[in-house]
Amino acid sequence: MDAQRPARETHRPIQRFRDGAWVCVDDAVSCEEPMEIRLLWEAGGGLQRRSIAITMRTPGDDFALAAGFLFGEGIVRALDDIVDVSYCPDEDEDQAFNIVTVTLRPGLEFDPSRLERNFFTTSSCGVCGKATLDALEVQGCAAVPPGLRVAPDAILAMPTALRHAQAGFAATGGIHAAGLFAPDGTLVAMKEDVGRHNALDKVIGEQLLAGRTDLGGHVLLLSGRASFELLQKALVARIPVVCAVGAPSSLAIDLAESFSMTLVGFVRPGNFNVYTGRERIQG
Amino acid sequence: MDAQRPARETHRPIQRFRDGAWVCVDDAVSCEEPMEIRLLWEAGGGLQRRSIAITMRTPGDDFALAAGFLFGEGIVRALDDIVDVSYCPDEDEDQAFNIVTVTLRPGLEFDPSRLERNFFTTSSCGVCGKATLDALEVQGCAAVPPGLRVAPDAILAMPTALRHAQAGFAATGGIHAAGLFAPDGTLVAMKEDVGRHNALDKVIGEQLLAGRTDLGGHVLLLSGRASFELLQKALVARIPVVCAVGAPSSLAIDLAESFSMTLVGFVRPGNFNVYTGRERIQG
Repeated sequence: MDAQRPARETHRPIQRFRDGAWVCVDDAVSCEEPMEIRLLWEAGGGLQRRSIAITMRTPGDDFALAAGFLFGEGIVRALDDIVDVSYCPDEDEDQAFNIVTVTLRPGLEFDPSRLERNFFTTSSCGVCGKATLDALEVQGCAAVPPGLRVAPDAILAMPTALRHAQAGFAATGGIHAAGLFAPDGTLVAMKEDVGRHNALDKVIGEQLLAGRTDLGGHVLLLSGRASFELLQKALVARIPVVCAVGAPSSLAIDLAESFSMTLVGFVRPGNFNVYTGRERIQG
Repeated sequence: MDAQRPARETHRPIQRFRDGAWVCVDDAVSCEEPMEIRLLWEAGGGLQRRSIAITMRTPGDDFALAAGFLFGEGIVRALDDIVDVSYCPDEDEDQAFNIVTVTLRPGLEFDPSRLERNFFTTSSCGVCGKATLDALEVQGCAAVPPGLRVAPDAILAMPTALRHAQAGFAATGGIHAAGLFAPDGTLVAMKEDVGRHNALDKVIGEQLLAGRTDLGGHVLLLSGRASFELLQKALVARIPVVCAVGAPSSLAIDLAESFSMTLVGFVRPGNFNVYTGRERIQG
């Protein structure tokens, strides 16, 4: 199965805007892939199998991730509680390394109904990156149309505008923000939250509650990194340009590319990286 | 209900170590509280009600958060799909502002079974911060014993040691890390992941797979902020001292205090803040 083992890092050709000029660069990117954790345990005289979590992770140390997750949830309390940890040889090769099955010790008390109450949810779908992207198409997500154009200077000015609007960050130094901008760099809406997904949900939800569901004329700025889930939320709201102060993950770039979105990362004083959709950036 | 509306920010007395001396400061902290999103919809001639998500959020813009979440998941697609958004007046006052019920338009197609597949999970419990902490006690979590002592210089040196060990960050500039240290500042284990929860699960899981479940002799360093969930995972592993390069949330501080853990935030060159458990830091 080694040939299909997903990487921790990958490389992407990007265009970097630096001090007024563009350069082409081969950029290293952290990988993000879904991993499903399955439990196998004895109950009622037979073996029970159940999927208990899908997490968006960087491949590597997958068995440790599964064991640590189960330990944190109180499902296992010692090494003896685990009989086996393995990838799933019966899955097709694409997904084999994205599914980890943990076999519990016979006799270990495990009540799957407890999980229903104690786990909370956030969105995803599919177990490999490709399946995840395919599922979005199945859900009716189409490519974002061209048309919007943004000047590099407008992008470069956005982090300062966002930070100035962030009352919470000014006070606590520890809260994420998402900002919706007009293409000329005017801040339209800003929300803060300790959870970066929540900050984006608040921005988009406020527009929805005002009757605006197509945000195709806007640019989004994220105060942190750009993950798959944040790009997914932007796609559903039809936001054509997503900028992030931090780095994008591999799957965020794949999503942006699949749906013709512009993804900009590492927006810092004087420079930024364009990962996809360069045509929407002027100059 | 206004009297019980949870705050976005709160203040905590902390001890700040700066350039070799301690000062007492009143510090502003971003609030973190669970929020449950419930759906109410017509089906089979009657009203159906179901809890579909609990998210750890900063209070404020809660209706926008609920609407944006449902929009991102494709459950609502326009403002007309939402008949009403409200807090739950029938809950006890502590929790009223942590539960948002969204009533869907009659006739809107909604298949709750679709959620089962498309949502993935992470851990939490309870709907208000206090219930969340109480639930940990019920699960058998006891206070972390005293004994471990750490020198300020050891803490100050940890971020550099973590960063030097981070191959992924060096390459991509965009990946979280969790590091397990001996009290003298020696790095014992380090894991990277685009998800900060995953990085910690990997560190703890690797120790578990080596037979070590009580990490009471160690200090944890997080490359980002310290949320409730990260403290919860550290508590289960009995880690007495948690340090973060970024800010802690209110609920992370509450958890640390409830279980006698030491929580250190904003570890920067020459200074850091101690939020709880100052007695484990020398000097």
